[in-house]
Amino acid sequence: MTIDRPTIAIIGAGFGGLRAARQLRRAKARVVLIDRRNYHLFQPLLYQVATAGLEPEQIAKPVRAILRGQRNLEFRLTEVQGIDLAARSLHTSSGEVAYDFLIVAAGGASDTFGKPGIEKHAIGLKDLSDAVAIRNRVLCLFERAALEPHPAVRRALLTLVVVGGGPTGVEMAGAFSELVHLVLAKDLPALDLSQVSIVLLEAADRLLPGMPAQLSAAAAATLERKGVSVRLGAMVDDYDGEALTLRGGEIIPCKTVVWAAGARAAPLAARLGIPTGRQGRIPVEPTLQLRGAPEAFVIGDAAYLEHAGQPLPMMAPVAVQMADAAVDNIRRLLRGESPVAFRYRNPGLLATIGRNAAVAHIHGLSFQGFAAWVVWLVVHLIQLIGFRNRLFVLVNWAVDYFFYDRAVRLITEDDAPC
Amino acid sequence: MTIDRPTIAIIGAGFGGLRAARQLRRAKARVVLIDRRNYHLFQPLLYQVATAGLEPEQIAKPVRAILRGQRNLEFRLTEVQGIDLAARSLHTSSGEVAYDFLIVAAGGASDTFGKPGIEKHAIGLKDLSDAVAIRNRVLCLFERAALEPHPAVRRALLTLVVVGGGPTGVEMAGAFSELVHLVLAKDLPALDLSQVSIVLLEAADRLLPGMPAQLSAAAAATLERKGVSVRLGAMVDDYDGEALTLRGGEIIPCKTVVWAAGARAAPLAARLGIPTGRQGRIPVEPTLQLRGAPEAFVIGDAAYLEHAGQPLPMMAPVAVQMADAAVDNIRRLLRGESPVAFRYRNPGLLATIGRNAAVAHIHGLSFQGFAAWVVWLVVHLIQLIGFRNRLFVLVNWAVDYFFYDRAVRLITEDDAPC
Repeated sequence: MTIDRPTIAIIGAGFGGLRAARQLRRAKARVVLIDRRNYHLFQPLLYQVATAGLEPEQIAKPVRAILRGQRNLEFRLTEVQGIDLAARSLHTSSGEVAYDFLIVAAGGASDTFGKPGIEKHAIGLKDLSDAVAIRNRVLCLFERAALEPHPAVRRALLTLVVVGGGPTGVEMAGAFSELVHLVLAKDLPALDLSQVSIVLLEAADRLLPGMPAQLSAAAAATLERKGVSVRLGAMVDDYDGEALTLRGGEIIPCKTVVWAAGARAAPLAARLGIPTGRQGRIPVEPTLQLRGAPEAFVIGDAAYLEHAGQPLPMMAPVAVQMADAAVDNIRRLLRGESPVAFRYRNPGLLATIGRNAAVAHIHGLSFQGFAAWVVWLVVHLIQLIGFRNRLFVLVNWAVDYFFYDRAVRLITEDDAPC
Repeated sequence: MTIDRPTIAIIGAGFGGLRAARQLRRAKARVVLIDRRNYHLFQPLLYQVATAGLEPEQIAKPVRAILRGQRNLEFRLTEVQGIDLAARSLHTSSGEVAYDFLIVAAGGASDTFGKPGIEKHAIGLKDLSDAVAIRNRVLCLFERAALEPHPAVRRALLTLVVVGGGPTGVEMAGAFSELVHLVLAKDLPALDLSQVSIVLLEAADRLLPGMPAQLSAAAAATLERKGVSVRLGAMVDDYDGEALTLRGGEIIPCKTVVWAAGARAAPLAARLGIPTGRQGRIPVEPTLQLRGAPEAFVIGDAAYLEHAGQPLPMMAPVAVQMADAAVDNIRRLLRGESPVAFRYRNPGLLATIGRNAAVAHIHGLSFQGFAAWVVWLVVHLIQLIGFRNRLFVLVNWAVDYFFYDRAVRLITEDDAPC
């Protein structure tokens, strides 16, 4: 294959798409990066926005600002509506985009497993708007509770349920505990904290299923010590905005449910007209190519590929590694070589559970407590894009750590968010 | 009048209400501060949020955080719906609040002079949501313009109109110019900047009517040099979201109109059942008391009082001075003394017009250019509440100044804001 200056289209400016665009910065190609948002979002810190520790803008950076120096790149803020694989053309809200190579990095979304009540009343944790909605809701409910005379109503206002015991759910529950016990307790001295209930529900028999069993147990013990009620083997049936029903019939009255129980490919994957598989993900060859369309690659959450008999997890490191592999294979194709199979190197798993507490499983080593927490801090600060974001996040963390504060406890919605 | 521990209710946590609450921090009283927002907003910097220079959370601080140490204070996040002056009781969304003294500091709102098209399609600059809406709109329109083939449509997308030549309008127009020429020009190299049009409309025959004529002329000259088209004697008839009509019939096709042409008391003032006067403000005695209700004071934008034959301007310094006077008069009444008349000390006027440029009229002295700009920076940094906000704003200003950047050019609305 010899194309003088090929057009490489990339759908999505998340971890995978952005990495692919940057890896192509010296390529003799026209790189067209498409996203319906004008910013790259650092999703791993969304839960801190949801608990008033960070400002939304501190974990987001404009794509044009990130890639300003890259001359071969063209960014299009538009929505992809479909693909014509045969004609090598993307249908977008602002016209057609012809390509020679395509990298689909459309990302993931919350999976509510077809439960309409969850879909409607629970809040996921995928976008800035989700995180801001959780923050507004929780702060507003606690303010309402401070003025609410009826004990049962007050208890429902003060019950925060997190569904899903993976890293996101564990971090969310731990952060809720600190927001309540370290900050809101001082803000609302009249409020009886014994009426606050933070519940973490997990369907399996342990938290953090990707980690060794002793770390799962450590995470659960730390959360319980922080006042989180960890319920294993708890399956959610539905939620109507007032009460959560568990399989078996138990009912938890609550006004806040954060849904971190499942992930699937973003809806865009289904709109592309390519058959999708488990979790709505698009099955790819080991080379990350689409079967029958060797110039089209799918990476990250949108791609379905197995590793050691299991689907690859929907995590940033997978997307980044796949971006490198896809770019490498495009280069091989352009040189007339054969593409090679993607090889996943597991970088480990990290989850914080609040002040001084985290669990980590890296290169086969398990560690927990303060050391794991410091590793977590450093890894996240390094990965965050932009000097200013890093500085602001660092200052926020330092002030919150030393003064037991959360600066961003603002209810920013005009209409009552609760 | 002898009350052992009087309840002093304050409506509004803006500049006036917050100042009154703080002045009462050592009073042997129960202070009840009521606001429908949980934060105090530093409105003078809203235009920088609107132009992507500052993050919304950096000019807001939770009321509970500001007043955390004040033991005699109780904050209620609720909406005031009416007053029973005879019974000395406030009706709020969460029940009645009985008071011995009342300070109404309900603030101001945009005045669209009964033009429904302006009300519906133009954006004011009073709340965080206004500023974020302007930011989202302008960034989105410029992105659309970059993909728009039709020249007339593109020109309407690239026309930004600011109505009102007071300090807010002047600062807004200057900030638009810098956003476009220093930042978006680099973000969108394909865009022809000669098609961008920033228009400042003022009905009077000069900008900044509160300032000496030579400063008005200097402001206009600086804006023109920055590419803003300043149109004096321009009266707006209406706006339908696509085209702005001027008196005389001229039509300006544009998708963005920022309305900074008029202010009136917030709607709450009208809901209180007290007769209102010009600009919907509540006429008060020279002591700031309500006629017939000597225990009730009205301050700030909500109060109508004349000074040297003119209504006092709707500005933060007036509200702060009135708060001091109202608290002082409440103390006099509690000691059995007579209240004294409010005396306004004009602190001067300041307006920036962007990098290194500002006009100032302080204690009868006029100055402009770099010196006025430095004064503006220092005054605003000092007045901003909170160490963290000050630090973040200072860093943002420094980085933007030296790197010609605007970090917050994020389009954060899920639905297309344009």
